[in-house]
Amino acid sequence: MSLIPKSHPRAKSLFIREKLVKGFDNGLVAKEGLLAQGRGEAFDYLLGEKTGKPAKNAIRAAAAQLLIAERPVISVNGNIAALCPKEIVKLSKQIKAKLEVNLFYANKMRKQAITKTLKKSGAKEILGLNPNTSTKLLGIDSARRIVDKNGIFAADVVLVPLEDGDRTIALRKAGKIVITFDLNPLSRTSQTANITIVDNVTRAINLLIDESKKLSKKNNTLLRKIIDNFDNKKNLSENILEIKENLTRGVKIA
Amino acid sequence: MSLIPKSHPRAKSLFIREKLVKGFDNGLVAKEGLLAQGRGEAFDYLLGEKTGKPAKNAIRAAAAQLLIAERPVISVNGNIAALCPKEIVKLSKQIKAKLEVNLFYANKMRKQAITKTLKKSGAKEILGLNPNTSTKLLGIDSARRIVDKNGIFAADVVLVPLEDGDRTIALRKAGKIVITFDLNPLSRTSQTANITIVDNVTRAINLLIDESKKLSKKNNTLLRKIIDNFDNKKNLSENILEIKENLTRGVKIA
Repeated sequence: MSLIPKSHPRAKSLFIREKLVKGFDNGLVAKEGLLAQGRGEAFDYLLGEKTGKPAKNAIRAAAAQLLIAERPVISVNGNIAALCPKEIVKLSKQIKAKLEVNLFYANKMRKQAITKTLKKSGAKEILGLNPNTSTKLLGIDSARRIVDKNGIFAADVVLVPLEDGDRTIALRKAGKIVITFDLNPLSRTSQTANITIVDNVTRAINLLIDESKKLSKKNNTLLRKIIDNFDNKKNLSENILEIKENLTRGVKIA
Repeated sequence: MSLIPKSHPRAKSLFIREKLVKGFDNGLVAKEGLLAQGRGEAFDYLLGEKTGKPAKNAIRAAAAQLLIAERPVISVNGNIAALCPKEIVKLSKQIKAKLEVNLFYANKMRKQAITKTLKKSGAKEILGLNPNTSTKLLGIDSARRIVDKNGIFAADVVLVPLEDGDRTIALRKAGKIVITFDLNPLSRTSQTANITIVDNVTRAINLLIDESKKLSKKNNTLLRKIIDNFDNKKNLSENILEIKENLTRGVKIA
């Protein structure tokens, strides 16, 4: 039984929190992942807990970029597996992207738990577990330098939801086009990625699936145009402005 | 061995994060406490991870209020016990306040672990464990309604660091003067408390001890003046303004 009183004004957010806690209990989420989620929560409140216009534009550009990609890969971590495993698998099928389990706090047991969850959610092939096909990204100092030869290493476009800044920079240095979900428009990840969707992944993922479906009927010229018209720095500035306006209005946060 | 690369620009914050994780491993911190800490982290970055002038003013008012109190009580939860147990005990001695363990996610084992930590840190008497002296606060819907008859229930001034909004409102309804540490100037706790110290408790607690020591030599007329001159709403507005200015400057957050 949930200990969260229904009368609590932040009940919705606390229920998502419980989802993460359940993911932690099931071995998907790292302790540090719980903290990272908390940080995201704060920015989500500041953004008004809704998908703004800038996020919608970023989702459209991301869909175009993923559809135009030759070897797109979705990097999956514990938090994503806990929050929206079915949606991530659905997206991978929609845009024909490979799935790779890749963790900041690497841990074999956790990788296996995530893989199991993804398989239960309909995933066929999951990379990132076979030591024989693992290799290293240069310019990164953490356990996350290890990637799959057939996955992120070979990818032209990588979707890294809820990513660390070091990792994003390393992927960019390796010549990848990086798309991320990040609620913090000031983060290094947000600032470094090619396309940053400043939105809660639990809201944005379904919009990205829908947009990918819609745009899959369009030709590459139009997709290219959407991508070229997207300016990530400008988009991030719009999100920062949104936060500032909410602060002026005095958004209420429990 | 820490998995955090020293080169990481957020290393300092990640080390505090590790402290919480260690507190979790030692049974002090709830999983939800890790998330709550993450939320605080975000606001700390937005505040520039420093003790600003508004926080210093709030600390001064808090010291005066705690010194003038007849029955001050410090409410201790898992996060506080993990982050600064020695400092909390030191403060309780400085201002002659009782310590009461009080948890949102109540749990006997965790209460005992927190008590053990406080005792190891020099605490003599710790309330909140004896079922014979427990009673209920009205107007609150969670496990935290349970308080100690000789502690929070009888207190005139309660210091509740890192508190939930419901609880703060209930304490105010019960006629208590509430002092809190809260990094989020928009939270219900911040907005409801009499004095809100918008600062990281790991930085502010030592300043509060120092200020209490300094003001302990002053007479009640001066202390009363400090309290009367303090305007919590104005102080919170100053903190919100600080965040907005930092957003304009584009604080960098990993």
